[in-house]
Amino acid sequence: MAEKAQKQETDEKAPSGGDEGKYLLKTPKGTRDYNPKQMAIREKVFNTITNSFKRHAAETIDTPVFELKETLMGKYGEDSKLIYDLKDQGGELLSLRYDLTVPFARYLAMNKITNIKRYHIAKVYRRDNPAMTRGRYREFYQCDFDVAGQYDPMIPDAECLKIIYEILTELDLGNFQIKVNDRRILDGMFSVCGVPDDKFRTVCSSVDKLDKMLWAEVKTEMVKEKGLPESVADMIGEYVSKKGGLELAEKLLEDPKLSMSEPALAGLKDIKLLFGYLQLFKITDKVVFDLSLARGLDYYTGAIFEAVLTGDGSGSAGQDINVGSVSGGGRYDGLVGMFDPKGRNVPCVGFSIGIERIFSIVEQKTDAKGVKVRTTETQVMIASAQKNLLEERLKLTAELWDAGIKAEVMYKENPKLLSQLQHCEETGIPLVAILGEQELRDGIVKLRDVANREEVDISRANLVEEIKKRISQS
Amino acid sequence: MAEKAQKQETDEKAPSGGDEGKYLLKTPKGTRDYNPKQMAIREKVFNTITNSFKRHAAETIDTPVFELKETLMGKYGEDSKLIYDLKDQGGELLSLRYDLTVPFARYLAMNKITNIKRYHIAKVYRRDNPAMTRGRYREFYQCDFDVAGQYDPMIPDAECLKIIYEILTELDLGNFQIKVNDRRILDGMFSVCGVPDDKFRTVCSSVDKLDKMLWAEVKTEMVKEKGLPESVADMIGEYVSKKGGLELAEKLLEDPKLSMSEPALAGLKDIKLLFGYLQLFKITDKVVFDLSLARGLDYYTGAIFEAVLTGDGSGSAGQDINVGSVSGGGRYDGLVGMFDPKGRNVPCVGFSIGIERIFSIVEQKTDAKGVKVRTTETQVMIASAQKNLLEERLKLTAELWDAGIKAEVMYKENPKLLSQLQHCEETGIPLVAILGEQELRDGIVKLRDVANREEVDISRANLVEEIKKRISQS
Repeated sequence: MAEKAQKQETDEKAPSGGDEGKYLLKTPKGTRDYNPKQMAIREKVFNTITNSFKRHAAETIDTPVFELKETLMGKYGEDSKLIYDLKDQGGELLSLRYDLTVPFARYLAMNKITNIKRYHIAKVYRRDNPAMTRGRYREFYQCDFDVAGQYDPMIPDAECLKIIYEILTELDLGNFQIKVNDRRILDGMFSVCGVPDDKFRTVCSSVDKLDKMLWAEVKTEMVKEKGLPESVADMIGEYVSKKGGLELAEKLLEDPKLSMSEPALAGLKDIKLLFGYLQLFKITDKVVFDLSLARGLDYYTGAIFEAVLTGDGSGSAGQDINVGSVSGGGRYDGLVGMFDPKGRNVPCVGFSIGIERIFSIVEQKTDAKGVKVRTTETQVMIASAQKNLLEERLKLTAELWDAGIKAEVMYKENPKLLSQLQHCEETGIPLVAILGEQELRDGIVKLRDVANREEVDISRANLVEEIKKRISQS
Repeated sequence: MAEKAQKQETDEKAPSGGDEGKYLLKTPKGTRDYNPKQMAIREKVFNTITNSFKRHAAETIDTPVFELKETLMGKYGEDSKLIYDLKDQGGELLSLRYDLTVPFARYLAMNKITNIKRYHIAKVYRRDNPAMTRGRYREFYQCDFDVAGQYDPMIPDAECLKIIYEILTELDLGNFQIKVNDRRILDGMFSVCGVPDDKFRTVCSSVDKLDKMLWAEVKTEMVKEKGLPESVADMIGEYVSKKGGLELAEKLLEDPKLSMSEPALAGLKDIKLLFGYLQLFKITDKVVFDLSLARGLDYYTGAIFEAVLTGDGSGSAGQDINVGSVSGGGRYDGLVGMFDPKGRNVPCVGFSIGIERIFSIVEQKTDAKGVKVRTTETQVMIASAQKNLLEERLKLTAELWDAGIKAEVMYKENPKLLSQLQHCEETGIPLVAILGEQELRDGIVKLRDVANREEVDISRANLVEEIKKRISQS
């Protein structure tokens, strides 16, 4: 199936001309190039995210794109099969990173760091079945923010949610919801419902499907495939339908069954504490305690969260519902200890923003609005209407570069004035400095405003200052 | 030899404690992590480079970290053995990119782009013998700038040199020199000296060693290993000792032997034209026409260039000479045609800045100056001297975040004032907003200047404005 999909894609992307071609002109399956327009949008999105991370006092680190294979082994459960291995060319066995969390834990253990607040924006790799139209790729960016260190409970967790809230608000992606749960509440719930210990994981993965499947289907899977008694499944169904906030945590703390479980109690107390902080941060309008949230990865130990876009009401009915997860995270207090030679743990909490889907949305929105995206920042074009002025154009251009002005000149000996002006209109260059024999003799330059076509004579000595003035006003 | 070096390095990097450890805690051979301080320096260097690229009207693109194996095959000559292949896990055969130039050519051909001025900053991968102390890694950044398109001769080539000049000047790395030559001059020179056609490549690679070896050694290699008659080697020696500028190109155009070669004549005319433009750009003080420059890669077809740091006079005599190449490039008019199904060519010229060595130098300089590098941008810490004010601190912090201020609060219920102030001094946070019972009653905050320890009472309503004022002044 995967191979078939690949074949189709290959066929689609192959050069369509009659000629066979010497090369298969494509990027690898599940990957893509970014063109200048996409890069301009990407830069804008990254700036918003980075600014928020910096506002929250984070440092940044970087790690290699590949790790020793053994570093990644045993961290991702089932998903390990999606890891890209490098060919054994003699030397170490290497794999491309699957996420930024495991390299972060390796970094902490290796450098014996016990507290840090860091962000990391980089590409990760998964040999998944790509669905590129929905923003799912094999090579994609993650933007991770994590807090490592022993602190008073739930304060860093609350800050993580605050940052997700800020970023999704600033990116203006329409409505969103941040779901919160706790791994210990899930485990406690399974326990009091009578799920055998060795089935926690598999039942958890059924629960995880509730964002895409109806309860009836999930129940069937639990009973038919996973062998749970129907009564147990029904009891789980009762719990996982619950959504709320602080008051739900308080209510469940009194729940006769759930309160029998130590882990569940600890989780519920933390959720209650968390919602207290979220109230101070004024973000409870978008955060919901949702007992059906069950994130797959092995390494979570406490709070877990996931942000989903819920549409902005502008799309068709179908598109509005569950556009999908754009961020996820949680607490993983045991991961660093897996790397430390003495098993010393460093408590961690963090999240990752899956940026590809966000790019797609921002790209679509930009196109829909008909906004023209500039891909350069050029402020002025140095042009001439007459022939044989290449040297004078180059000289003036260099003067402007040296003054820190973003300037462009055509690589032609005798370009037409019209084509120089057209280039400005096409690429959004706001000013043109026009040179001619007469201007050179008079020591002036004609400065043209591309938008309103007004031209004024400026003395060569005042040109830099005038351009800077015009730019700062626009 | 390579394996031995690797073994040593592995031993050095293994955890030094008595415990054996469950994992080998290291990054793969030839790679490294960047810690927050290194990232702060890296960001500064990238900003300088990116600003120069943008000043020269460049757009940016991105390509995947791996390409189809066949895309990279046959582009790097001997160096192909340094390419990292991915394991065949079913599906396409993939390799990590070796540089950014071949992916750029693939991008142009695939999208039928015939002109673009673009930069690309990204990591590339070479299974080389790393010498990390000298800034040589297996995973390293390249900053590439290239101009593709059919233009009047040598104008984009001259702009490339101008940009290299600007960047190396702005980065303040000490003296540097940009060597220029032309592949056609080298070929013509070999031809008129009587080197057989099939030995051009191997003799060229001997010439390439002249930056590290004496002429006598290179001559011995040519005669003993490569079988050139001594008279031929001597004649080459005569030419490759020549260095100069415009006047050297003019002189060689009259050279009775060299002027017999069509390619050499074409190359010399272009060098002459180039130096004319370099004079207009006022950069001839650092650019030298050097007939011994012979860059290895197969794909160059015309002008080639390389920038070397020559030391700033502050190091010991040995360090001063040839600190090494930090940038290289040239014209490659045939590469895109290798990808185009119909063999259509797009003329290209560009260069790459090898950034790792530059990072090392900037890092060393920063340390030598004793400058403290800030790794966060936090503007204010929200602190209290009294107990039980966590909620008030969180509330105020959120207010400041919402106002766009970079603010930090300790994740402790009752931190000591001293430890809060110490954190500010250690990380360079300039301001502290201190809350206490009395301040809360009075609706004020004590704003403390960390540097001079002055404290003033500011009303809560004016706090944001006051912080912004102080920040903009500093």
